[in-house]
Amino acid sequence: MEESKGVVKHVLLTKFKEGTSENQIEELTKGYAKLVDLIEPMKSFHWGKDVSIENLHQGFTHIFESTFESMEGVAEYVAHPAHVDFANLFLSHVEKVIVFDYKPTTVRI
Amino acid sequence: MEESKGVVKHVLLTKFKEGTSENQIEELTKGYAKLVDLIEPMKSFHWGKDVSIENLHQGFTHIFESTFESMEGVAEYVAHPAHVDFANLFLSHVEKVIVFDYKPTTVRI
Repeated sequence: MEESKGVVKHVLLTKFKEGTSENQIEELTKGYAKLVDLIEPMKSFHWGKDVSIENLHQGFTHIFESTFESMEGVAEYVAHPAHVDFANLFLSHVEKVIVFDYKPTTVRI
Repeated sequence: MEESKGVVKHVLLTKFKEGTSENQIEELTKGYAKLVDLIEPMKSFHWGKDVSIENLHQGFTHIFESTFESMEGVAEYVAHPAHVDFANLFLSHVEKVIVFDYKPTTVRI
């Protein structure tokens, strides 16, 4: 099994609090995306809504994925004032959240 | 915000049951990877262990991500006998699981 060198994917799953409007979610998503310009080690960002059919999403409705070149990059991001400010705002709107970091690994069979 | 055409990411987060050995997890991971060869609409697969530092991973330890060309492809995968057999085996080893499908969307600011 081969681990890709350095690259770290930072995945956030969330369910927003009841009463959070679509407009608010769009603003939060734009704010999240803006961090790519503000925090050097954050290399890319995408997001999406759950469209699963297996009913195993456990109530989570939105996913946000960003990419870093290393765990040091993630640590720099986590501590960055722009992230701290944004995280405080974002987390005030969530009912539940999971944040999961990993180094994508492929399998050679 | 631009949704990529068709492509669906299928994300599974899990925590294995206590007592599941590293060997068993490796065999399950290889079994998951093999589905790429067995189920035509499944286009790629990677996995990883949680290395996050924010302590928001809620006990989840492993992630598995596969890619499909469409939601129809995911539906074909879900119903495929090779997936059904593998899912029964895999789920017998998990303490908790989330399955989340989404169409990755980028944000133009």
